[in-house]
Amino acid sequence: MSDEVTARSRHGGREARRRERSHRATGPGRPYILRNIPTYDILSEENLARIERAADRILAETGIEFRDDDAALELWRKAGARIEDRLVRFEPGMLREILKTAPAEFTQHARNPANSVRIGGNSVVFAPAYGSPFVMDLDRGRRFGTLQDFENFVKLAQSSPWLHHSGGTICEPTDIPVNKRHLDMVYAHLRYSDRCFMGSVTAEERSEDSIEMARIVFGRDFVEKNCVILGNVNVNSPLVWDGTMTRSLRAYARANQCAVVVPFILGGAMGPVTNAGAIAQSLAETMAGCALAQLERPGAPVVFGNFLSSMSLRSGSPTFGTPEPAIGSMVIGQLCRRLNLPLRCSGNFTTSKLPDAQAMTEGTMSMLAAIHCGANFILHSAGFLDGLLSMSYEKFVLDTDLCGALHSYLDGVAIDDNQLAVDAFAEVGPGNHFFGSAHTMANYETAFWDSETADNDPFEKWEAAGSEDAATRANRLWKQKLREFEPPPLDEGIDEALKDFVARKKAAMPDAWY
Amino acid sequence: MSDEVTARSRHGGREARRRERSHRATGPGRPYILRNIPTYDILSEENLARIERAADRILAETGIEFRDDDAALELWRKAGARIEDRLVRFEPGMLREILKTAPAEFTQHARNPANSVRIGGNSVVFAPAYGSPFVMDLDRGRRFGTLQDFENFVKLAQSSPWLHHSGGTICEPTDIPVNKRHLDMVYAHLRYSDRCFMGSVTAEERSEDSIEMARIVFGRDFVEKNCVILGNVNVNSPLVWDGTMTRSLRAYARANQCAVVVPFILGGAMGPVTNAGAIAQSLAETMAGCALAQLERPGAPVVFGNFLSSMSLRSGSPTFGTPEPAIGSMVIGQLCRRLNLPLRCSGNFTTSKLPDAQAMTEGTMSMLAAIHCGANFILHSAGFLDGLLSMSYEKFVLDTDLCGALHSYLDGVAIDDNQLAVDAFAEVGPGNHFFGSAHTMANYETAFWDSETADNDPFEKWEAAGSEDAATRANRLWKQKLREFEPPPLDEGIDEALKDFVARKKAAMPDAWY
Repeated sequence: MSDEVTARSRHGGREARRRERSHRATGPGRPYILRNIPTYDILSEENLARIERAADRILAETGIEFRDDDAALELWRKAGARIEDRLVRFEPGMLREILKTAPAEFTQHARNPANSVRIGGNSVVFAPAYGSPFVMDLDRGRRFGTLQDFENFVKLAQSSPWLHHSGGTICEPTDIPVNKRHLDMVYAHLRYSDRCFMGSVTAEERSEDSIEMARIVFGRDFVEKNCVILGNVNVNSPLVWDGTMTRSLRAYARANQCAVVVPFILGGAMGPVTNAGAIAQSLAETMAGCALAQLERPGAPVVFGNFLSSMSLRSGSPTFGTPEPAIGSMVIGQLCRRLNLPLRCSGNFTTSKLPDAQAMTEGTMSMLAAIHCGANFILHSAGFLDGLLSMSYEKFVLDTDLCGALHSYLDGVAIDDNQLAVDAFAEVGPGNHFFGSAHTMANYETAFWDSETADNDPFEKWEAAGSEDAATRANRLWKQKLREFEPPPLDEGIDEALKDFVARKKAAMPDAWY
Repeated sequence: MSDEVTARSRHGGREARRRERSHRATGPGRPYILRNIPTYDILSEENLARIERAADRILAETGIEFRDDDAALELWRKAGARIEDRLVRFEPGMLREILKTAPAEFTQHARNPANSVRIGGNSVVFAPAYGSPFVMDLDRGRRFGTLQDFENFVKLAQSSPWLHHSGGTICEPTDIPVNKRHLDMVYAHLRYSDRCFMGSVTAEERSEDSIEMARIVFGRDFVEKNCVILGNVNVNSPLVWDGTMTRSLRAYARANQCAVVVPFILGGAMGPVTNAGAIAQSLAETMAGCALAQLERPGAPVVFGNFLSSMSLRSGSPTFGTPEPAIGSMVIGQLCRRLNLPLRCSGNFTTSKLPDAQAMTEGTMSMLAAIHCGANFILHSAGFLDGLLSMSYEKFVLDTDLCGALHSYLDGVAIDDNQLAVDAFAEVGPGNHFFGSAHTMANYETAFWDSETADNDPFEKWEAAGSEDAATRANRLWKQKLREFEPPPLDEGIDEALKDFVARKKAAMPDAWY
């Protein structure tokens, strides 16, 4: 054994022990979190009912346009909606009735069964950010994302004990043709992660390709009966469902897979500038999307999503991680629970262009809103910068560390004789320290969240070590994590079948770049 | 008028209009916040009662030491406590009975009556950080605080529309003798701020000097009947009340002024390493302190405080802004409401040595805990860095901006026909933008919090303007605010009387540096 290897494995051993301790402290290797604190309900029943009536009025009077999807219009017609051209109007109560077939919670299966997640009820699942065309790091600044970046983020997500889900389009692999990149993305999720993941939604056939690749891994019968893939479909707010999205939504539902239904409402642009109005609109749009999935296949899993954002009064620019959407999340959570559906809310949002103080002020406020509002599936938990335009390597590491802290936060406070330390006070007594006490020795390893990125050293020690800021530490950490990454095992036959599917699909069509 | 003046006043006018707009957006010039969202109650009645029983047992069996204050022991003796030497034990229920004379809420009067604050009930008051020996800024790094720094922070606090209180020992003016610096600090609060403030507690006579200076400003009769000054007294945890603190506490109570009673418990050191035990201890210690104030003068205002902190498993260093103390705050809030006392909890805590991502992740989590737990008086709302050892100019600006966002957060969501935008949907219709709609035009100026420190510009514009991080923008802002500062008017006679008092007191004793 060379000296270098010895040194590395010695360090690795210490690091592994530390990591294990740190996991024990907040629950080792949980596939997802079961919340042990209540949701934060901020609005009265009466005011929730007023919002619901406002949504009902939007649905009945203004209606929602369903563009370029005759099959969707036909489903609405059969369900009894009023249709004029492509505008669909809904009698109050109609969508709620349809939504009764949607499951309140369900399991999304991972190819490693130990990583399957429960979505709904008291469960909380953290997934990486989604959809940025650019990536950033401190060394190279902002640039278009590539497949290499995409794979890097899948690996970084897989290596974090504080995420539970591999996500979907973590960044756009812009070096791959638009009509083929979904194949490489789904392959990367299946090859470099053994957690749950999301498929493409940018065209019906890409949704179906994504689901077909899942069938190769899980088996056709299993997929017919179980959820193994999510698709995140967006409303074209205000009050328009685009055919590309509804056809993808219906493809997921048809295969008994889950559509996450998400209006993106920038208040004052795609919805009212007032919070209550934007919430009512969001409720109307999401109910319509979830209900359409139920019409396509009653009982198909759906997630009730939303993406509220504010804007700067000075520039008209969108803002993220601000107080109004955070408060809005809490209300959306209450409304969703009244529908008995799994919830997706906010994430680690920010408009900052650096992993700096602004990024984490906004991100922490937004992320805590998702925690408090009872979100079950929290997309954009890690990496979001630049108003969703850039995926940041450093922010990814800082965010996953915050996700770790939120594990402890969601554990709440345990109350029993040991936690209350009833005998420790007699042992220690007034004026003495608890450092070496029996109670401390028995509990310290599991007592506190232990951050990987925070520097808690005294100033002098921190200064002597180079006065690094958190972003610099995060820069070192993502490089280390990528160096140390080892892909989870994947059956060779399945791997070959996936590669074969990707190759055949790619060969069957010319490259398209739009 | 010179060109320079014209340019400046033009800029000033624009800036003033922007600032006014920004104030209107979240309520103009409020002296304090009245919360419009509920507290976040995370524990059941049953578990709260278990914590109370644990605290009662600590008080009855282990007891609390009261050192170097015979008058305090005499008060406890008369009240019926069991005393052995300096150890005081309390029968269950005794302290709760004594605490019934404490007001549930009260007004602290400011020398400008428009700035008087309500403490208790639904009110929320933000005050700067307290007690750092060092100060920091990006230009000069860390150094010992001076009176100049102290005055700067009083000015920065006064100039922020998002703080409500001038605080106390914002930083230690280490260039002034220890036994005289309280005079300069209280004078600075009274001269450069017209908001409420805190006096000294480091010795009984310094507490009395602080109160006497308040009497010069408010008049002896007014002070006898009204609260005009707070004193923040710390428990010497675990379970020790030091005579310096109890004599100061009694001095404030005797003058009908308010003691803020605060155990500082670093779990595993000054209390149990388990959260529930630290909370029970905190409850016991704070109840004893608040009750002592009531024995000294029944009806004197008190604030129920706490300061929970965790530690790093790796180094044993204290950690701040971590999840366990945040959750602990929520529980303390529930316990305090069961005592019907005004509450002080956490603040913008962090161990970071820079105003970076770590600082604001930890700070935002901690500050939101204070907001959610129902804290009425939030000390350490701005400036805290380096585990309370350093007051940071840049963090101060970033934190006050967060305090602004929390104004909007605490406003919650209004529900009425205008906020629900009931008519706007008919006006705008599916697929159209709300930008120029009548509803948007009528509401956009008051719709969203407008941050002073966040950069919401597109990447390209931000890059062209120099790619600044939030700390760099904050550096520019604090300098600008100090340049533009104008002290609030102060009656010349009062100013002279204060100066005279300070001069006489200083002349009456030799300098002491410990």
